[in-house]
Order: sequence, then structure tokens, then C-alpha cells
Amino acid sequence: MSDKRFQGYRGPGRAVLERFDVGVWHDVVLTTGDGSFAGLILPRSETSDDRHIVIKMETGYNVGILADTITNITEHGRREINYEIPEKAFPFDKHKPNVTLFGTGGTIASRLDYRTGAVIPAFSPGELYGSVPELADICNLTTEKLYGVFSENMGPEQWITLANRIGEEIEKGVDGIVIGHGTDTMHHTAAILSFMVQDSPVPIVMVGSQRSSDRPSSDAAFNLIHAVKAAAEGNIAEVIVCMFGPTSDEYGLLHRGARVRKMHSSYRSAFRTLGDIPLAMIDSKSISPLRQDFKPRRKDRNVTINTAFEERVTILYYYPNMQPDIVDAMVEKGYRGIVIAGTGLGHVNKPIYAALQRATDAGVHVYMTVQTLWGYVQMYVYETGREIMGLGVTPAANMLPEVAYMKLCWALGQTTDREEVKKIMLTPVGDEITDREPYDGYLIFQGAIPEVEEFLRTIKR
Amino acid sequence: MSDKRFQGYRGPGRAVLERFDVGVWHDVVLTTGDGSFAGLILPRSETSDDRHIVIKMETGYNVGILADTITNITEHGRREINYEIPEKAFPFDKHKPNVTLFGTGGTIASRLDYRTGAVIPAFSPGELYGSVPELADICNLTTEKLYGVFSENMGPEQWITLANRIGEEIEKGVDGIVIGHGTDTMHHTAAILSFMVQDSPVPIVMVGSQRSSDRPSSDAAFNLIHAVKAAAEGNIAEVIVCMFGPTSDEYGLLHRGARVRKMHSSYRSAFRTLGDIPLAMIDSKSISPLRQDFKPRRKDRNVTINTAFEERVTILYYYPNMQPDIVDAMVEKGYRGIVIAGTGLGHVNKPIYAALQRATDAGVHVYMTVQTLWGYVQMYVYETGREIMGLGVTPAANMLPEVAYMKLCWALGQTTDREEVKKIMLTPVGDEITDREPYDGYLIFQGAIPEVEEFLRTIKR
Repeated sequence: MSDKRFQGYRGPGRAVLERFDVGVWHDVVLTTGDGSFAGLILPRSETSDDRHIVIKMETGYNVGILADTITNITEHGRREINYEIPEKAFPFDKHKPNVTLFGTGGTIASRLDYRTGAVIPAFSPGELYGSVPELADICNLTTEKLYGVFSENMGPEQWITLANRIGEEIEKGVDGIVIGHGTDTMHHTAAILSFMVQDSPVPIVMVGSQRSSDRPSSDAAFNLIHAVKAAAEGNIAEVIVCMFGPTSDEYGLLHRGARVRKMHSSYRSAFRTLGDIPLAMIDSKSISPLRQDFKPRRKDRNVTINTAFEERVTILYYYPNMQPDIVDAMVEKGYRGIVIAGTGLGHVNKPIYAALQRATDAGVHVYMTVQTLWGYVQMYVYETGREIMGLGVTPAANMLPEVAYMKLCWALGQTTDREEVKKIMLTPVGDEITDREPYDGYLIFQGAIPEVEEFLRTIKR
Repeated sequence: MSDKRFQGYRGPGRAVLERFDVGVWHDVVLTTGDGSFAGLILPRSETSDDRHIVIKMETGYNVGILADTITNITEHGRREINYEIPEKAFPFDKHKPNVTLFGTGGTIASRLDYRTGAVIPAFSPGELYGSVPELADICNLTTEKLYGVFSENMGPEQWITLANRIGEEIEKGVDGIVIGHGTDTMHHTAAILSFMVQDSPVPIVMVGSQRSSDRPSSDAAFNLIHAVKAAAEGNIAEVIVCMFGPTSDEYGLLHRGARVRKMHSSYRSAFRTLGDIPLAMIDSKSISPLRQDFKPRRKDRNVTINTAFEERVTILYYYPNMQPDIVDAMVEKGYRGIVIAGTGLGHVNKPIYAALQRATDAGVHVYMTVQTLWGYVQMYVYETGREIMGLGVTPAANMLPEVAYMKLCWALGQTTDREEVKKIMLTPVGDEITDREPYDGYLIFQGAIPEVEEFLRTIKR
């Protein structure tokens, strides 16, 4: 039996394939104690672990099954899938705008990765042109893979590199920037870029996909075309998240970087603007602004890059019966900033008041947000709120908890003076704090459905 | 000047009232460094702090202004508000069902509280009849104030008392139970009651109000009538949250206790069923079930009360760049259970893998949920997910983070055997885990608007 038949499989994984006389590209049903899994056995890389069999299921998901748990494998046929992307030279047209696409990792414009059993990004302009030829109608594309990390592994090193490279590209004269990013923490990166990169003269558009391009329902090409269009032609010179629209695949939405959050673990329409309406709708033909208060594109090359960052900041997600030792632990570990996601209008229980007092006495900067995600912190209404403010906890209005976390990291990277930090935190940079949340900014933006929009205007909440 | 003029004010608070020659029940504009506040100066109790002036604003909110920050007060008139509730004997009708209302605190059926500058619950049947006479048309009401705590201060002592009293009332033959509760943590209490009180033969209905009954827009009476009706006449014998409907004040919604969450800090329509549709719509005339899979009312008096509870459980709300010392701190402090709210399909960053391994090696029970709130944990898709499972972290399907926290407290109160705990956690009791989330269970339930419902059925997400 050739090694190609077991490509990448060693140890227990290979042993189970041999035992049941199957190999890569075989269509099988695997039986385990937890149930059966039907799909195509995928090859793996030399560096894969040796304990899993990876199959592509009908849903398009690749799953890894522990070899030890497999009690039977039956074969139903063979079919090889070609994951090669045809590479074509990306055409250059001097009349078209110039866009730089930064790759950071994630499933946008991706293909199968033998190592993870998942997907890898395609990044040369030629590969992108080969898979999404529409991009050449929009712009001249330059691509650069900054790094390749799963988005949950992003950290200050990656954010700072990205901010600095954005600044350099802007100075070099590019007309727009697209950032391919894993969706898990795309909104966190969008938030920190909103603070690190200010007053950009061109659009900075983040994009990802919830389903990889080897799945029939992939949103990769759809989102990528929209993002490149927003970067090349759009007039909104802000940090934007460009993802699938809420209710159909007719359009995408552009979300302000500091007001967006991933709200579904698997739907393509996972990203939503919270407490406000999105910036614009976008399809392959046009960009339709939904509001006029955006920062427009400029001719100059001025941009402010401020990559200050303090790592010792944490989020305290309040739950009833929280004990004071949780707060004490953060102080003992040397954290300099705490963002609380409180209940209701911004509350925590009485037993932790003393611990919060100890924290602020120790110089820790503590800010209150709401875990309801929609609505404002309002600590004047109840005496409990006033008492918590008396402990030195500062209400952060309607900043989302994740955004407040990123902003506090950024603020504490600049100063530790209490009043200065407070001033930075409470001065809005990119609508992370707004004066009011419109009625149609609650739960779902229905702008695409005029009848619903009209109906919602007539009712109370 | 009489003490009545300064009722409850001492120290700096009283001094500032004297300085500007104003007193309680005066309509004023207070000027501070942060801006002006117009409203009615409210009396306070003997035990109030002496640093705030409390005014009722036009919005109905009572706010406390620090006396030290007040630079001017101008008076525009006087008007006394009567917060007395007319007390009338609650009529008894032997043909009507018997309902017990437990008071726990919160703003339901409340009136002004001089101490907090906020509101206090009215709890004698006579007071409730006086303020909401419709209740007598529905049932014979018995009330009992179990305790009076702000809902953020609820803990196992209160939850266990409540579960035991519910069991006793059911055995005594009551036809339904209503629990008045502050809204901040109503969904947490609903979750733990779903586990502590199982197979009830009668409805157990939690209710609260987002705006106190002294505000024109109060939802207190509206919600209370619905809750009492659901308890007295409803056929759904489960732990239910009864609150304001999503889009109008025409109806309320009944939510399953383990699938509901507060999603707005101030709107009356704050409570939403997540990842599913609600149990029923309710108005003063009828209860309209939206699904048929509920547990119906029974004649017997059998109910299972299990008040097991382990307090050393915490929630770890993941954010990018989380450091391992946060996980280590929880282990060092002796926590026995950790519910992670991960990003995406249930991910955390690589640097904390080793700390999670140390936690599970130390016998800590670690479960994964998703901070997107909608959708499932799916840790088989990416190698990272499989690696995290390899550390001993168990995916908790589509349990909400708060619900998983409550269930882990309850499971660890019963056993510390790893497989037993896992079995308890992953066996659904009250739809805290479901097989699938319907398309209209995402973000907003639109059941009340047939046109919207119809539209949503035709589109993809």
C-alpha cells in the first residue's frame, strides 16, 4: 500500500485506516461510541497529530474523529477533490484604484489545509484573481501576508504590526486597504484599529468568511468583492467591518469598527452593528450609505498611528453570587485595568464592593459596561449604582465590553494618570460611545426591508 | 424651618438645600459642573447617605446628585406626589384558582422608596388589589415577601429558600406561583429554578418591571396581570419568565426559564428567548402558545426539589490576548468549575492551553460556551477546537453562558465525579440544550407580526 493512500496519517490514525482497509479520498461512514459520521477522508500533512481521522462531511465541515473511538468504517466509493486554485496574472489598469490586501489568517479566500484538516488562505494576487476574477474589475490589487494566525490568537504584536503597515501603505498612496481576518475576533481587531489608526484618508475594510470557499454556501467571494469595492470606491474613510447582510445574500453591510460584534457562532449573517444602524449596504453594483455622519475619503496622506498598548487589562463578566476573591485575584496578578460587564444598568453584588475598593485603591482603573450589550450604563438611578461609582468605578456609557477592553488597553498604554485615562476612555473616537441608540438599533437592523422598517417606526419598544 | 421641609436630608445634602432656600417637593433646576438636572426634590429616609440630593426627573428616573457638585438651584414651584397605595380587601371567590405571589425585591408593583430614592415593592394582597384591581378577576391571591434584595445580590441562600417555598406551596395545593423579581438577574434565577424545581404540576412564573409603577410608562401592572394570568389559567407548567413583548405594548411573552436573557439595560422589551422562539404570547384576554412542546399542567402534587449548589464556580469571558495567569488564579483560589464563554465556535488562544490543562489536571470541571450567544459550540471543526477538547474542556452545545454557570453550580453540588457531572451538564432539563436553533430564533422573534414572519420564512440567513 502506497503512502499516498494514507497521506499524512501515522500512528493510531493510520492503524485504524489500515484495519478497515480504507484511505484518503474514500467516501466512508465512521462509527464511534458517540454516533456515526459520513464523509470523505481527507489527507493530512506530515506535522498533523496522529490521533485523528479528518473527514469532510456533507455539510462542508471538516471534522476530526479520534482514532481510538472508531469501532467501524464502511466505504461507499472514492472521489478526489481538487483544491488547487488556478493562478492567473492579475491585470494592471492605471485608471483603476490601488488596493492593498493584508492577510492575517482566517478562512477568507481559503482552500483546504492538510495540516489542520481545515482551510488555508490564498494570498497571491494571482490566486485571488483565479478564484474571484471580479476583483480585477474593481482595482489593482497588491497582497501581503503579514502573518497567519487563527484569529483567537491575535494579540498586541499582530495589532501593532497591522496598524504600522496600514500607516505605511497610506503614506505610499494606496486608495484603500482590505484586511482578511478570521471572524472570531474580527470585531476586537476592528475596535483596536479604530483607536490605533485615526483620521485615515482612505477606507480600512476588514473582511472574513464564516464558511470556507470549498463549501457551496461559502460567503468568501461575496464578502471579498464587497470589501474590495468598499476599499477601492467607497467614500467612508473609517475602520469598517464588511460582512454578509442580515437577512439575505443580496447585499453585505458595512459596520463601524467600534460598534460591531459577532452574534452567531456559525451563520453567515453573524456580524451586527449594536445600538446603532450600520454605515452602509453594499452589493456588486453600489454602496448605499444608511447614514451621513461618516468620515469621508480625502486626498491627503495624513493619518495618525498610535500603537500604545498595556497588556495587563482584563474583563470581569459579572454573575450573581460572584465572590470578592475573583476581583482580588486580578489585583494580586498585577492587572492595571478591569472592564466589568455588569448586569442591568451596570450593577454588581454588594460582597464585591470592598474588593473593588481595594482594586481602585491599588491604582487599578475600573470601568463599567453592561452585559445586556444594548443600552447604556446608568449608575445614577439606583443607590447601588451610586455606591459602586463611589468605589471609583467609572461608567463607560454604551461602549461594548470588548470595545471598552480594547480602549482601556490603548489608554493605559499612553498614561496611568487617572483623569487622563478617564478623558481618553470617555471621549468617543469612532462612535464607541454615542449620545443615543436609535429604536432600530436594537437587536436587528431591518433597513433592507422597507415594509418592516416602516412598521417598526410606528411602534414602541 | 421644619424638618419636614428637609425630610431625610442631613450634612452636606441639607446644607446645599438650605443655602439655595429649597426643600422636598420643590420643582427645581440643579446646576452642576456636569450640566443641569430638572426635577422634583424627593424626600429621603433617616438612613440615607447625606451626600446626595435625589430628584425625580421628567423621564421618571430618580437620580442622586452629589451635593458637593451643585453650584446653583433655582425653584419653579411645588407639588407633592402621593405614593400611598389605597389598600382594599382582596375578594375571595371559591370558583377562582389560587395563586401565591412571592416577593423577592425588585421594582414590580412598587412605589417610591425614600431610602434609595428609588422604589419599594407593594406586597400585601390589599395593596396589590388597590393598585391593580384586575388581579381579583383572575384569581385568589396570597402574597408572601420572602426577602427584599436588589436582584444583583441574589445568591444560593435566596435561590434555595425560593425553591423550597415553591415546593411547599405546590404540595399545599396552589394552582400557580408568581415570583416578583428584579430584572437584572431574573434570567439567572429562572435558570437555577429550572434545575432546582423539576416536573412542577403548575406554572411557576417570574415577573418584574423595567420601569417602576410611579412612571407613566411603567410596565409593572401590565406584566403583573399577564404573569398572574399565566400562573392561574395557563397550561404551561414550567419555570417561565413573563415580560413585555418585543415590539408593542399589546402583548407580553412567556419565555422558557433556561433560554431567556436580558438584552437591553433600559427598554421594557429587554427580555428575549435566545436561539428559539418563546413559549407563548399573552394579553389580558388570552394565552396563545407559539409551540406545543411545553409540559402541561397536571392535577397531581408531585414535584422534584433539588437544591444542590456548589458556590466555587466562575465564568471566564474570553478576550484576545488573555493571559494564562487569569486561569491559574481561579485554580489557586479553589474554584471547582469554570464556564468559558469562548469566541466563535468555542475557542480561546493558545497561550492559555497549558493553564487549562493545569486546571483540569487539578480536577476543575471546565465547560465551553459561546459569547456570540446565538449558535452552538462546535469544537470538531478546527484543530484548535479539538486541541482544547484534548485539554479536558467539554463543549456545552448551545447552553447560554449564564445558564451553563448555574447548571454547573447545581451539578457540582450533587457530585464531583467527572463523568457524572458531564452527564448532568449535557442532559437537557428545560431546553437549555436544544437539537437545533430555528431560523426565527436568531436575534428577534417576530411572531406578532405575521407579514414579517412570512417574509422571514422566505429568506436565507
